[in-house]
Formats: sequence, C-alpha cells, structure tokens
Amino acid sequence: MSLKRRHENDSMIIGRFQPFHNGHLEVIRKISEASDNMTIGIGSAQYSHTVNNPFTAGERYLMISDTLKDAGIDNAYIVPMEDLNRHSVWVSHIVSMSPPFSVVYSNNTLTKRLFLEAGYALKDPPVYNRSEYSGTEVRRRMLCDEDWRSLVPKAVADVIDSIDGIGRIKGLKDDF
Amino acid sequence: MSLKRRHENDSMIIGRFQPFHNGHLEVIRKISEASDNMTIGIGSAQYSHTVNNPFTAGERYLMISDTLKDAGIDNAYIVPMEDLNRHSVWVSHIVSMSPPFSVVYSNNTLTKRLFLEAGYALKDPPVYNRSEYSGTEVRRRMLCDEDWRSLVPKAVADVIDSIDGIGRIKGLKDDF
Amino acid sequence: MSLKRRHENDSMIIGRFQPFHNGHLEVIRKISEASDNMTIGIGSAQYSHTVNNPFTAGERYLMISDTLKDAGIDNAYIVPMEDLNRHSVWVSHIVSMSPPFSVVYSNNTLTKRLFLEAGYALKDPPVYNRSEYSGTEVRRRMLCDEDWRSLVPKAVADVIDSIDGIGRIKGLKDDF
Amino acid sequence: MSLKRRHENDSMIIGRFQPFHNGHLEVIRKISEASDNMTIGIGSAQYSHTVNNPFTAGERYLMISDTLKDAGIDNAYIVPMEDLNRHSVWVSHIVSMSPPFSVVYSNNTLTKRLFLEAGYALKDPPVYNRSEYSGTEVRRRMLCDEDWRSLVPKAVADVIDSIDGIGRIKGLKDDF
Amino acid sequence: MSLKRRHENDSMIIGRFQPFHNGHLEVIRKISEASDNMTIGIGSAQYSHTVNNPFTAGERYLMISDTLKDAGIDNAYIVPMEDLNRHSVWVSHIVSMSPPFSVVYSNNTLTKRLFLEAGYALKDPPVYNRSEYSGTEVRRRMLCDEDWRSLVPKAVADVIDSIDGIGRIKGLKDDF
Amino acid sequence: MSLKRRHENDSMIIGRFQPFHNGHLEVIRKISEASDNMTIGIGSAQYSHTVNNPFTAGERYLMISDTLKDAGIDNAYIVPMEDLNRHSVWVSHIVSMSPPFSVVYSNNTLTKRLFLEAGYALKDPPVYNRSEYSGTEVRRRMLCDEDWRSLVPKAVADVIDSIDGIGRIKGLKDDF
Repeated sequence: MSLKRRHENDSMIIGRFQPFHNGHLEVIRKISEASDNMTIGIGSAQYSHTVNNPFTAGERYLMISDTLKDAGIDNAYIVPMEDLNRHSVWVSHIVSMSPPFSVVYSNNTLTKRLFLEAGYALKDPPVYNRSEYSGTEVRRRMLCDEDWRSLVPKAVADVIDSIDGIGRIKGLKDDF
Repeated sequence: MSLKRRHENDSMIIGRFQPFHNGHLEVIRKISEASDNMTIGIGSAQYSHTVNNPFTAGERYLMISDTLKDAGIDNAYIVPMEDLNRHSVWVSHIVSMSPPFSVVYSNNTLTKRLFLEAGYALKDPPVYNRSEYSGTEVRRRMLCDEDWRSLVPKAVADVIDSIDGIGRIKGLKDDF
Repeated sequence: MSLKRRHENDSMIIGRFQPFHNGHLEVIRKISEASDNMTIGIGSAQYSHTVNNPFTAGERYLMISDTLKDAGIDNAYIVPMEDLNRHSVWVSHIVSMSPPFSVVYSNNTLTKRLFLEAGYALKDPPVYNRSEYSGTEVRRRMLCDEDWRSLVPKAVADVIDSIDGIGRIKGLKDDF
Repeated sequence: MSLKRRHENDSMIIGRFQPFHNGHLEVIRKISEASDNMTIGIGSAQYSHTVNNPFTAGERYLMISDTLKDAGIDNAYIVPMEDLNRHSVWVSHIVSMSPPFSVVYSNNTLTKRLFLEAGYALKDPPVYNRSEYSGTEVRRRMLCDEDWRSLVPKAVADVIDSIDGIGRIKGLKDDF
Repeated sequence: MSLKRRHENDSMIIGRFQPFHNGHLEVIRKISEASDNMTIGIGSAQYSHTVNNPFTAGERYLMISDTLKDAGIDNAYIVPMEDLNRHSVWVSHIVSMSPPFSVVYSNNTLTKRLFLEAGYALKDPPVYNRSEYSGTEVRRRMLCDEDWRSLVPKAVADVIDSIDGIGRIKGLKDDF
Repeated sequence: MSLKRRHENDSMIIGRFQPFHNGHLEVIRKISEASDNMTIGIGSAQYSHTVNNPFTAGERYLMISDTLKDAGIDNAYIVPMEDLNRHSVWVSHIVSMSPPFSVVYSNNTLTKRLFLEAGYALKDPPVYNRSEYSGTEVRRRMLCDEDWRSLVPKAVADVIDSIDGIGRIKGLKDDF
C-alpha cells in the first residue's frame, strides 16, 4: 500500500493567521472532522513585526495550539512554512515540511493553481462569514481600539495580551 | 506579569532526529514531565535525502507526533526549524519560530554557547544510553540490514516503512 | 588576441519574454544578423505562476528555441538568468552565466546604466511596433479571450497550448 | 564589569543616507557629543542603482567618512548593514555587525519597536529641519537640476561629482 | 494530449562539465539519437573559480554549444542550473528551468533517487571509458602540464585557451 | 578626471581577522603608509561562534578600530564584507561595499585571481613572520591557556577580555 493511498484522507490548509480568528477555527473544525489528519500550515512564517504581519510564527503557533486544545481538536499538525519566493518549487517545499497529505483546501488562486498542476485533490474550504471574520478586520480593530476580542477565540486573545500584541501593532502603525 | 515569567517553566530542545529514536523519547518524556510546555525543534529542517539527513522535516514531524501520541505526551509543540547558517542570529530565529520558552536543554556546545550569551537558562538533558541509541547507529544498521527497529519507537518504524525509508537510505549511500 | 577582442561582435539582449512575441522575434532577427553570436537572456528566471510572470524559465526557453528553429536563426544562445536582487553585482552575474559578449542591446534604463558603468558597448535595439507587440497586451488578451495568437510566433502558441497556458493565466487572475 | 556596562554610553543610529545630508550631519554631531562612541549603520547596504537608492554602500561610506573628517568627529564607527528581510532576527544581525552599543537613536517605528522588544534604551534623535533636509528632496533636486549642493556637506557633493552621481540618478529615472 | 505524453521521448542529463570532455560528448551523442529532444543541464551553475569548479556556467555553455555544432547535434537544449542546496525541491527546480522532459539519464545516486521519488523514468547513461575521460583527470593534467587536449573536443580546448583557462586553474591551485 | 584616476593610490586588503594580530598590524601600517587611503575588509562577516571564526564582524571591527587609533593610523576604512558564496560576482560585491580603490594587496590565490581577471593592480602584502603571527596559532593558544596576548595588539586583548572571548572559544571547542 503506497504512502499516498495511506494518506488519502489527510489534508492541508495554509494561512497566514495574522491573527487566528473564529472563521479560521470554524473552517478547521470542519476539515478536521472530514479528515483522518490535517496539517495547518502557518504561511509566511519568517515575516513578523509589520502592521499586516504583526505576529511571529511561534506566536501564531501558540494561538492555534491553545485554541485547538480548548476546542478538543486533536488530529491537526501545526507547521510553520517559510516562503521561498519561487512559485515553481513551492509545492515540493510545502510537501517536504508537512506530514503526508492528499487533499488541499484553499480559496487562494495561486495555491490552488500550484497544487492543481502538481496533481493534488483540491477542495473548497467550508464557508464562513468572511465579512465579519478576517485578519484585516481584526488588525484594524486592534489599531482603532474597537472590539476585536469577539472575533477571535479566547486562547488567541490571551496570547495577544501576553505578548502585548496591541502595543506592537500600534507601535508599528506609522510605518505602513 | 511578563511573558517571560508566564513561560518560566516552558522549555526547548532541538535535534535533527534522523531518525527519532528511543533515546530521544526517553529524554523528551522527562523534559515533558519537568515542563509546563515544551518545544521540540526539528533542526536542519530544509535538509533531507542524504545518508546523514535522509528524512524530510515533514517525515520527522510525523515520526515524533505519532510517537508522542502513543506515549501519552501532550504538552509538546513540534516545530521544524530551518538553518540560517548565521550563528549570531540563530537564537532569535529559533525564538521567532517557537512558542515562548525560558529553559533550553542541550548537550551541543554551539547551542549552549549561543543561548548562554542570549541569557537563557541552560539545563543538561536527562541521561540515556548514548552508545546504544544514536541516529548514526540507527542509520548504519539500516544500511547494513541489521536490527534497527529495536532502537526506535514503533510509530517511527511505521513511518519509515510507509515512506520506503530503507530504500531511500540505501539508494543514496554511494554518494556520501 | 584577448577574449574580449575575439567576441567584439557578440551581443546580449535580456527580456522576461512573458511570453515571447512577434516584436521580440523581429528584434532578435535583426540583432542576430548584426552579430557573430548573441545571447538571449531569459530574465527573472526563477519567477513564474503570477499573472505578470505566468511562464517558467523552461517554458520560455522552449518558446524561444522552437521559434528560432522555425525562423532559421542559429547563432543565438538561450540562457535563463535568475535575479539576484542586488544591482551592484548584476552585470558580473549575467556575464558569468553567458558565453562572452561585448555589445548589449537594451531599452531598460537600469540595464543600460549598469552595463554602461561596467564599460560595455550599448546599442538601442531595433525598433518595432511596441503598442501592438507587448507582453502585457498578450497577457491581457489571454485573460479576456481576445485574439492573442496573432501577436506571437506559431511555435509560442503551440507551447502555450501544450502547457494549458490559458488555463494557468486565468487560474491565477484573481490574486493579482 | 560586563560588556554592556562598559558600553552603556555607546550608541547606534541607522539610516539609508541616500545621500548623506546636512540634517544627518547635525544629528550625528549631537549624538557624537553625547556618546563615548557611536555606530553609524548604513542600512539597506546591498541596494543601489535605483532612483530611491542610487548610491552603493561603499559610496555612502565615503560620503560619511569624508564628512566626519571635515567636521572633526572622530568617535564614530561606520558600518554597512545588509537587510536580511526577516524582522525577528534584525536586531541580532545589527548587533553582530557593530561594535557594542547600548543606546539606539531612531524615529523609525519598526526600528524602535524591534529594539524596544530586545531591551535596548531608545532615544529620540536630535531635531532638525526635516522639510528642508531629506534624502527624497535632495534626489528630487538632482533629477530636476535644482540646487542640491546647499543641502549636503561639501565632502558629499565631491563624492557625488567624482562618481557622476547626477548622471546615474538621471540615467535611472525612467524606470521608477 | 497531455504535455507529458507529448514529451515522453524528451530527456534530461545533468553534469557539472568542468570541463566538458570526450566522454560527455559520447554520452550526449547517444542520448541525442535516442531522444526527440534533450536538455543538457549545467549543474552547480553559480560556482566557478575553484580548482574543482574552475569554469563559469557561461564558459561551460560555450564549450558545449560549440562542440555540439561541430558534432552536428541539433536537438539539445543547454540550460545552466543553479544549486538550491535543498534536495526536497531540487526536482521541481530543474523542471522549472528546462523545456519539458520525461526521461532522466544519470549515474548519480542522489539525482536518481530524487527523480525516482518524483515519478520520472530513469535510464543508465550510455557507457564510456570513465578511467580515461573524467573532469578530475582533465583538471589534473591541466595543473601538471600533461596532455589534456586529447581528452576534450577541439572546441572545448579552444574555449579554454581563449579564456586562459590554464592560467586560471594554476592561479587557483594553492588554495584548495 | 575619472574616479579610478583619483583613487589610483587607494588600496584594499581583506582578511578574516580571527582575531586581528600583530602581523596584521605590521602589514596594515606599511600599506597605510604606501596608500592615500586604504580599505580593511573584514571577510566572512556573517560568520562567528565557531572555533575557527569565533568573533562577530562587530567585535572584529572594534579590535581593528581601537588598534588603529593606538597606532595613529587614520587613513583606513574598516568595512565588514559578507560572503556571497558565488565567486564570479565577488569582486563587484567587494567594490560595492568599499570606498573606491585601485590596488589590492593579497596572498590568497582566489582573491588574487578574481581581482586579476577584473583588471585590478595586485601587490604582495609586506612580509611578516607568518609562523609566529597567525590567527590559527592565536586561537590554539587561547584554547590551551598558553600566551596569546603577546601575539596581538593590546587593544585586541582588551576587546577579547571584555567580551569573554576565551570563554566563548573554549565553550565552542568540542563541536569542531
């Protein structure tokens, strides 16, 4: 039995998770239920400390890990993925960093196209309220002292508080 | 309460885990018991497909994850760590990729020196039988068709079988 | 007799060729006639799979090679050139990747300035109808299902068809 | 006595210095007086030959060095600093390239935030007339044949003349 | 008809060609005859100026191109290939730089293993006298003023003479 | 008058300076006297924390700067130079990081060959007692608690003491 066969029900989803929010959790809960195992790839892992990418890969890892524990999701691998900025090798880079998977969930046209050309099965991620839950909106509210806590899992808010995430995002804002 | 204080009992250990063996498991079980949470850093994550570094970061992640599940260890973060080949920034790179930690376990002189200069608490990893359990010895036995399975957790042997790890390591041997 | 003297009538032209079009062919035909040998550098070789850089270096190599064969041009070296993103070393990078040359044809201000400072002879490329023939226009027509085939050599259209180039460029369009 | 203590009155300022102008000199003169020693970091050292970053690190080094000699400032280390494009390791990169320092002068929000998180003392640079003295304004005047010489130290104008800096900046302008 | 099908008789061979010798020519002549088209990948393209890698990619390109012309081989694409030093993405890098191919000729265990895992057809290159024809032996003779010209095609000797290749290899020898 | 003419008596010397010793000082004093200005390039600037490259570029900068002050040498530019690991572009990289120079002093065959091919004037550095003064010997004595202080300028010993250089080099020794 080939490796691919064994992992035919294992899946991958990649996001920047800046920060991880309730929409992400909803999607991951559903993919987790539909999969044997799943990989959550933390994209653009090497970037941090900008208004659009405020959190390090390690901080994002902690947000996701604590949230999954609270949510009782225990079949997900969390893997930081550095960008290589060379699209033609991106799929094989992702594959090398992750436990094996056969299915890719993505709305991103580039991700979909690259995995399609590499022969992977593509699925549309479960739908959620994208106008309410978006990283951009969470970061905007953080900058404007509006309510961002209702958009993220409690564990995420705790991580952001513990690292003074609001201080960081406000401290960076003039530059971008 | 600062982040560092909150994480004063969180720890880090880094290895190449080529492959993960019983000695690694013994060490991690003890560190896991002594820590609130711990990070297992998979070092040299971008390297694979050589006789000394045969397995990808993703394959090593799966070996460790499956083993920890079997062993009932549930407070470990597994994080692939790419080498930057620039020692002066290595600590801050590791820190950025991992959930926060305060204690570093290492026998490696470079790792110890770099974290020491950066002000981290260093501890000697728990002792295990290093002449019996070593990645070098496991790989040697794989090449020579000797018994390597008794040196690794069952989950690791399963992963190696599923990816034809013996075929890979033998297929690479003439070159190195 | 020095190397430079021997190659005083050898020339270089660099483009991204996304894709190679009739204007490119016209220019190269004339430079080819004016040169002993010429290098066609495929710039930004490592980039692909975006709406503005859809094709890999290898696909662009094939477009050019097949076109030159059809056109009976047999004194051109085709060389993919990766960007180093460090202008001060760019000329020596290009020089190291190409057979020797003495003359550079370019309309690009940066290319012209860098080769000028390095002491190369610069010539203006032969004129062609730039409003009709441009990579941007070809890609726009591909996206809009307008006639792009009349803008490119037949061999280029064949390559694009064989790799489902239209599918790729349309599959990527939402992202850029 | 620790290294940090010994260098508690040594400082760092980082700029792109494209080119070095009278405002820079004013700031550095005051920091130089307030410090035992200071490092002048030439940021984005690997970039040059664009309208916004026309000069190489070596050319900028010469502008600063000649100016400091004329101004009688003799306690400054000039250090080109390449960007690593990975903010989380930037502070340790800067630290590794510079003689030791304890104080950082900066108006840049990213620089301030990164050194703040790393535990450095931050000070606001001395004030100068920012509407009159700015690299952008100097480069604009160079392009438009307006008076730029009155905005820079004489030594800087001499370096720019000796490398045909005006020719370079005009030669590049169409591209950006 | 898929791209892969169309190119089922197109092949790839990769070498460092330091320098290109009669054994290489013999192999390429036979592969050329057995293939519709073939790619000759110039490996380690970014390295030069060491005793073991004396020649630039551009110089090696010229050696091969001139030799193929003399030999009447006209179905080969010559492509410099930079090393990425990351084996898991190496195949997709090579694929992105080359016109499409389905068959790989190699004696190198790493190359064979990587293309095997990626699903390519592997063939053993045609046999030639490896004790007589080897890059190591050619370079040794160059250093020792022994007869190296009989080991390489005439066009290669001409290129080496024109760039003072003997001067270079001797000028570098103390260092390695 | 061209830039090159103006700088015809400016020179460059590159070393790793691990650490800077009396032989280096002797050489630099003589070159300094023979030159209008000189650049001291700190090679392999990004490497540190190994037994053979223990000191950071910034630490080496401080050793040299303090020594030159004590020695009354005031016409030297000190410039950290990162390796690019691509020999064909190395000269243009060095040139871009340094104030202009025309003469290169070197005993290193690679450095000499690369600058020779780029058309620079090469000179042999002044002779000194190489068996007594060498970085290797200084580091060996540091490891063995033998007298290393007599081999280096006093300012260098002070820097090494202030950063616990002996502790670092001993702390790293088992690994290499």
